[in-house]
Amino acid sequence: MKDFVVRPIGVIRSDLKDPADAPKQGALTEQEAEVVVDPAFLAALDGLERRMAPAGGAVTGDGPHRKSGKIIVLCWLHGADRGRLRVHPRDQEELPERGVFSTRSPHRPNPVSLHTVTLLSIEGNVLRVRGMDAIDGTPVVDIKPHSPELDG
Amino acid sequence: MKDFVVRPIGVIRSDLKDPADAPKQGALTEQEAEVVVDPAFLAALDGLERRMAPAGGAVTGDGPHRKSGKIIVLCWLHGADRGRLRVHPRDQEELPERGVFSTRSPHRPNPVSLHTVTLLSIEGNVLRVRGMDAIDGTPVVDIKPHSPELDG
Repeated sequence: MKDFVVRPIGVIRSDLKDPADAPKQGALTEQEAEVVVDPAFLAALDGLERRMAPAGGAVTGDGPHRKSGKIIVLCWLHGADRGRLRVHPRDQEELPERGVFSTRSPHRPNPVSLHTVTLLSIEGNVLRVRGMDAIDGTPVVDIKPHSPELDG
Repeated sequence: MKDFVVRPIGVIRSDLKDPADAPKQGALTEQEAEVVVDPAFLAALDGLERRMAPAGGAVTGDGPHRKSGKIIVLCWLHGADRGRLRVHPRDQEELPERGVFSTRSPHRPNPVSLHTVTLLSIEGNVLRVRGMDAIDGTPVVDIKPHSPELDG
């Protein structure tokens, strides 16, 4: 099969500086961070402000138009071990190893991570989000609106 | 920023043969399809059988261990236009154009798609899933367990 080239469209800015500080996969976090989008892609952000979390965090609308105030940020975990096919879940050595596709481990053949985060504000090319566990400097691959119907 | 290389780990096999047949982004589908994983990654599937949808589709467990019977399949939409930054939502020309990051359009700088699908069965390297709107031949990039807490 053919390979494809990912060109990052932005980067994470966060107080989380070290992979050891990041919450383990599967853990929820309230960590706030910035998604700094390459200005070349500014036009692609147009309309995302509709996805901003309303004050108080209430969900608005219903059915397919229900808005959760959340977006999905896809990152490339450049420090991952792409050759690892089995891991101890949550890095707990007492748990038996399992295939990486049955875990949310960063170590996997294509280390694309999913972050469903609350969109707090947009200023120019900078998105402020809550619930981001990627560390500072992580390349961003894509941004999508979260849909409770499609993704929930 | 540095580029990265995606190496597909499998391919979609589906009766949906043409992009024009695929449901529009944002539409739910009951389409069944197969995720055929490259046998080189067989070990990475170990444990995924725990994610299989129980008969009747009931959700089991609770809290962080709640299981939805769903997995997330990430694909690379190789037919996408990577230079397109704005689109008419759902291809409806009467709707004003918006930035691709505020839509689920396949056209985006890095055309990684998310498919939250029900896992029906696993036989060797072949996963049978329901709710897959990617067309036949679409390269698969990653497979993750779906977590109602992280992704909902």
